[in-house]
Amino acid sequence: MILYDAIWAPSPRRVRVFLAEKQIEIARELVDIRSNAQLSDAYLAINPRGTVPALKLESGEVIDESAAICRYIEALHPDPPLFGQTPLEIAQIEGWTRRIESDCYAAGAYLLRNTRPHFAERGLAGKWPVVPQIAALADRALLMWDAFMSALDAHLATREMIATDRYSFADITALIAIDFGIVAGLPKPEAHAHVTRWHQAALARPSASA
Amino acid sequence: MILYDAIWAPSPRRVRVFLAEKQIEIARELVDIRSNAQLSDAYLAINPRGTVPALKLESGEVIDESAAICRYIEALHPDPPLFGQTPLEIAQIEGWTRRIESDCYAAGAYLLRNTRPHFAERGLAGKWPVVPQIAALADRALLMWDAFMSALDAHLATREMIATDRYSFADITALIAIDFGIVAGLPKPEAHAHVTRWHQAALARPSASA
Repeated sequence: MILYDAIWAPSPRRVRVFLAEKQIEIARELVDIRSNAQLSDAYLAINPRGTVPALKLESGEVIDESAAICRYIEALHPDPPLFGQTPLEIAQIEGWTRRIESDCYAAGAYLLRNTRPHFAERGLAGKWPVVPQIAALADRALLMWDAFMSALDAHLATREMIATDRYSFADITALIAIDFGIVAGLPKPEAHAHVTRWHQAALARPSASA
Repeated sequence: MILYDAIWAPSPRRVRVFLAEKQIEIARELVDIRSNAQLSDAYLAINPRGTVPALKLESGEVIDESAAICRYIEALHPDPPLFGQTPLEIAQIEGWTRRIESDCYAAGAYLLRNTRPHFAERGLAGKWPVVPQIAALADRALLMWDAFMSALDAHLATREMIATDRYSFADITALIAIDFGIVAGLPKPEAHAHVTRWHQAALARPSASA
């Protein structure tokens, strides 16, 4: 089993943080996304979508979505449970994970991919035909980010963690999405006391530096 | 338990098809999205995000994401398994579901939300501040749709179902995403023989009309 990994990018980090919470190590191969090695013929032969992370199994199968990789690991190593155990926990973690992805992670991706010269003609991640950047998505990104941060702050006013009583895949997703958005150029959540408290706690976990 | 449902929209349909495959019935209340009842004070008191579907539990908890609702149902009623049983099946279904959502479902949403007068200033689904439409997303939608259909066609050349050997949540997601994209104005998959064969088979299942 080999994990194709990359520094800096949020989705590979999601898998690394997940593995660190599970205290599992997997052999890794670094893909140099700064030189666009994810779009090289060599890597496309492994993952035709041209995205990282990807997990290549002994059978030759390749899992090419970060959440799918994490669910695979969870099925093999259920403890600690990061996707929930009861039906309600499972639903709460899935629901918050998707909300964080669609309203927060997407904001960072919209901004980064549609404004940086490095991503000219690559408005979407991975192997696509020419995808022109759309500058107006930067405004939409800011709007989404602000609304999401206000909603998350209100939610965290009465809770320690995001989805359930313990650190879960939803918290991991929020950590990588918020840090990614900040690097992309969106405002730090300083104005939101509850988000800031949660963020500091997430950053203080050993898994955050994985 | 009450399912807040709506005709026509893809996410409520995803839950209905899922329930039909499970042969489960849940009390439903229809939200009239054509008159924007999902943004009424009465509905926002149930689901502040202003989206459908939402599942209100006896405990008062509300699950407001269609995939989270389906996972909740799966945890309560595991048969037939629609999210997989082995670690590999679980990963394949999750991976394909997410690819279909990001590359195919998103294309339909981009086109519909950013071109129709009905959605002026509501470029995102649900309760948001004013979200201006971005006309350029229509071009991106077409590009995504075409590339996805070609990739799915190649994938289905050697397979009956999308993710595993049996009809799964990934197939349900593709069914609702493709039908939604067509209604939004994207081309029917007629040029893609394998997608067309799969689509006809999915439409022929009793669950498709749920």
